Order: sequence, then structure tokens, then C-alpha cells
Amino acid sequence: MKLITKAAITLGLSIAVVATAAFSASHVSKPQADSVKARQGQMQLIGYHTGILGAMAKGEAEYDAAKATSAAKNLNAAASFDRASLWLEGTEQGVADDNRAKAEIWTDAAGFDAKFMALQDASAAMIDAAGTDLDSLKVAMGDIGKACGACHDDYRGPKN
Amino acid sequence: MKLITKAAITLGLSIAVVATAAFSASHVSKPQADSVKARQGQMQLIGYHTGILGAMAKGEAEYDAAKATSAAKNLNAAASFDRASLWLEGTEQGVADDNRAKAEIWTDAAGFDAKFMALQDASAAMIDAAGTDLDSLKVAMGDIGKACGACHDDYRGPKN
Repeated sequence: MKLITKAAITLGLSIAVVATAAFSASHVSKPQADSVKARQGQMQLIGYHTGILGAMAKGEAEYDAAKATSAAKNLNAAASFDRASLWLEGTEQGVADDNRAKAEIWTDAAGFDAKFMALQDASAAMIDAAGTDLDSLKVAMGDIGKACGACHDDYRGPKN
Repeated sequence: MKLITKAAITLGLSIAVVATAAFSASHVSKPQADSVKARQGQMQLIGYHTGILGAMAKGEAEYDAAKATSAAKNLNAAASFDRASLWLEGTEQGVADDNRAKAEIWTDAAGFDAKFMALQDASAAMIDAAGTDLDSLKVAMGDIGKACGACHDDYRGPKN
């Protein structure tokens, strides 16, 4: 019985340590924490629609002009949210939980804006390209990939 | 020692049961599973921006025409994604994991579409109202709340 109790206490302490680690970075208000989740929703939508187009570009999915156009329109819409509502100050990695936004998003706001605009432009070009043919889609895909990578390089922190 | 081993086995089995339960509904392809996450991103964005406007309507946050307009534009954009890419057949609750989409979304597609259009219309009206004054925002908020509730009543299943 004594051994079991000791094992249970050890397990209980381990869970407590994990719980503390998971919540240790929560120095933000509810609106700030909610904004992090909302922009992660935005990234989910960007990634998902880029994935549909990327699969066609790589030949993993059959080219379908209607599906590609739908994905391109949604990608452009997802890239075009007004950033003022989503990127609240004080929500960078290490301050707000579960989040990889670098502080440079706010200290270099013009740079961040330019990188995001590149995705808006590339995804706008994709709307026409996606409905034209597979070769056009592939060319447009290159610019989308570059836009994603360039922004992540400068403004996304390491994995949590 | 025997007691500990028995405890360890019981714990191991419990974890296995939980893991099975968590994954038991995964009868879907990766694109289907990804679509569920993407539309949850959409719902996150809808809920977040509705929350910003709702807090002003309820007097929990100070009315700010610029913030309200930004939130209304983003809400309208989030409500206006092309549904063809996001609501893939075979991804209803009980078939795809962690998901409350009722089968009626697909069996009554016209009804679902009409309910979603009501949110598009209400959020489009909010763009002007949000920038006008708090009273206008409150009126427009009523229609947004009704649109959310009407769709959830008919097309959202119980909590998982």
C-alpha cells in the first residue's frame, strides 16, 4: 500500500508540474488570449487553402479549376483580414501562451505589414491563375510559398 | 513490487482506452480532417469578432468606432468564405473527430446556405452600423446574434 501511495503522489506531482509549465506564460487579458486563438484560426485557414492548391501544384491531387478557384478566393480572404483586430500588442511568444508571434511584429510593424501584403498580392494573383490552367497555378504557387516563408522567417518564433 | 506493476498495467490500459476513445471517430481522410480544423478556424474568427462587437453592445467595452468597424469587416469576411472548400461531405459529427457539424448541413444544403447568408447580411449591415454610433451597433448586434443562434439551433450538434 505504501508503494502505491508513493507512486500516486509522484504521478500527482508530475501532473502538477506539467500544468504549471502549460500556463506559466499567461500574462495576458482575456481579449488578448482570444486574439491569439483568432489569428491561429486565420493561419489555419491560410494553411488549409494553401494546402489544397499546393497538392494540385505537386500533382498529389487532380487539377480542378473550380476547386482551385474556390481555394484561392478563400486564401485571399484569409490573408486580407484587418490586422488591427488580430495582432494585439502584448501577445508575443513568451508573453501569451501557445503562440509563435515574434516581438518584431510590433517593433517592426511596417516590415510585418509588407510581408503580409505580399501574401495578399500573391493570393489575389492566384484567383485568376487557379481558374486558368495547372501551369498558371504552379507559377502562382511559387509566389505564395515565398510569401509564407519570408514572413515566417522574420516574424515567427521557434516551436513551443 | 507486484502492486506497482499491477498499478502500472492498470494505468497503461486506462491510457489505451482514452486514446481509443479519442480517435474512434476518425473515419475520414486527411483533407477531410483538415477541413474540419479550417472551418473551426473560421468559427473562431466569427466568434472572436462577434465578441468584440458584443462587448461594446453590452457596455463591457468602450464604444470605439474604428475598432468596431475593423471587427465588423473581419466578421463579414469570416462569414463570407466560400463554403464549398470548407464543408466537405462526410465530415459530420460522429464521423469526423472533434466536430459538431450536423448531417443536415449536407442533407439540407439550401437551408444551411440560407442560415449562413443571414450572417453575411447581418455582418455586412454591421460594417456601416459599427462606424455610426453605439445605438446603431446595438441594433445590428441583435440581427447577428439571431443569425448565429438560428444556424446553431438547426445545424450544430451537442457538445462532444
